[in-house]
Amino acid sequence: MSRPLTPEQAQRTEDLYGPLTQSLRTLIDVVIRSKADDADVTRAHRLIEQAADLLSARIDPEPFGVRAVTTGGVLTWGNVAIGMRNAIAPPLDVRTDETGRATTELELGAPYEGPPGHVHGGICALLLDHVLGATAHRPGTPAFTGTLTLRYVAPTRLGRLRVEAWVDSETSSKTFASGHILDSDGVVTVQADGVFIRPKDKYER
Amino acid sequence: MSRPLTPEQAQRTEDLYGPLTQSLRTLIDVVIRSKADDADVTRAHRLIEQAADLLSARIDPEPFGVRAVTTGGVLTWGNVAIGMRNAIAPPLDVRTDETGRATTELELGAPYEGPPGHVHGGICALLLDHVLGATAHRPGTPAFTGTLTLRYVAPTRLGRLRVEAWVDSETSSKTFASGHILDSDGVVTVQADGVFIRPKDKYER
Repeated sequence: MSRPLTPEQAQRTEDLYGPLTQSLRTLIDVVIRSKADDADVTRAHRLIEQAADLLSARIDPEPFGVRAVTTGGVLTWGNVAIGMRNAIAPPLDVRTDETGRATTELELGAPYEGPPGHVHGGICALLLDHVLGATAHRPGTPAFTGTLTLRYVAPTRLGRLRVEAWVDSETSSKTFASGHILDSDGVVTVQADGVFIRPKDKYER
Repeated sequence: MSRPLTPEQAQRTEDLYGPLTQSLRTLIDVVIRSKADDADVTRAHRLIEQAADLLSARIDPEPFGVRAVTTGGVLTWGNVAIGMRNAIAPPLDVRTDETGRATTELELGAPYEGPPGHVHGGICALLLDHVLGATAHRPGTPAFTGTLTLRYVAPTRLGRLRVEAWVDSETSSKTFASGHILDSDGVVTVQADGVFIRPKDKYER
């Protein structure tokens, strides 16, 4: 892990990269749906290359990983589900309550499509893996997926979704969790259950 | 579905958007790993906004869906796993042989990270859902995931991966498939099995 950031450094980085990554999410979406003239597409391509060149001037050879803040806590800005600097991440904002229940609401558009107009089954799996996993994390000890079973009971339309997960039972090292995805009508579209493991060496996986 | 494209239109669009989307994948990666000066990050943000504005001048209100080519076949350029115009997609290039076995090789970097240095469990699920599903598609009749079970048997490091899937048994409407992810040492990291369904109304899901 690299040197811990001060809260001020973390905030400044978030102020810079948060809005940029949000613009990049918009760009990913419009690249899929654009009907612009060929000349404008070519111009857009050049701008994308210029932006990548500017940001590549100095670059970390490693993926983002987990970075500490001097006041405690960690930053997971590269994470594909929740990362503030990862434009693939919707990003999920997962809330957990005192009972261990984890919940997130999100809106998924064209970039998450599988069957026409619907969320890809694998993206549903990503959402459920992450939110079920969130019931099992402990401060300083993230949990890793052991097994995950998904039942696709209804189509998941692109749009507003809610993901909920809860703990069924626990041992010192394992959490047995269940959860589901609800569409904007409150209909359950995918059900999941899984076993999540807290290894002794916290980064062994 | 919108009007079928001629092969020439399809090729011209692929020549325009293929390289642009590849540059966008690079941009997603460097946004996560950049250590550029604040001024350069701000400049890059402006270029990203300009590119999005150019491409938004004319835009399809719908997600990409599935578009036909006049000579037969369909384009799934928006698909989050395989889409040529979807920068989230690695993209997977899934080959199926005459026995129904489906295989893909790919390289995953920083944008697909979960645990530090490792592929997010949900991305492993996306890969397996898509490649197992590929064993079940029939021309004009895509298959949808019914159930999917994943067993994470070893950590999946970021880097070169191979995904393989095969048919265990079939009925007229269902394919029972299994598969796994192999790392660059040939070690199985995640095993999966699932049931994939070919509905009568091919776009009902």
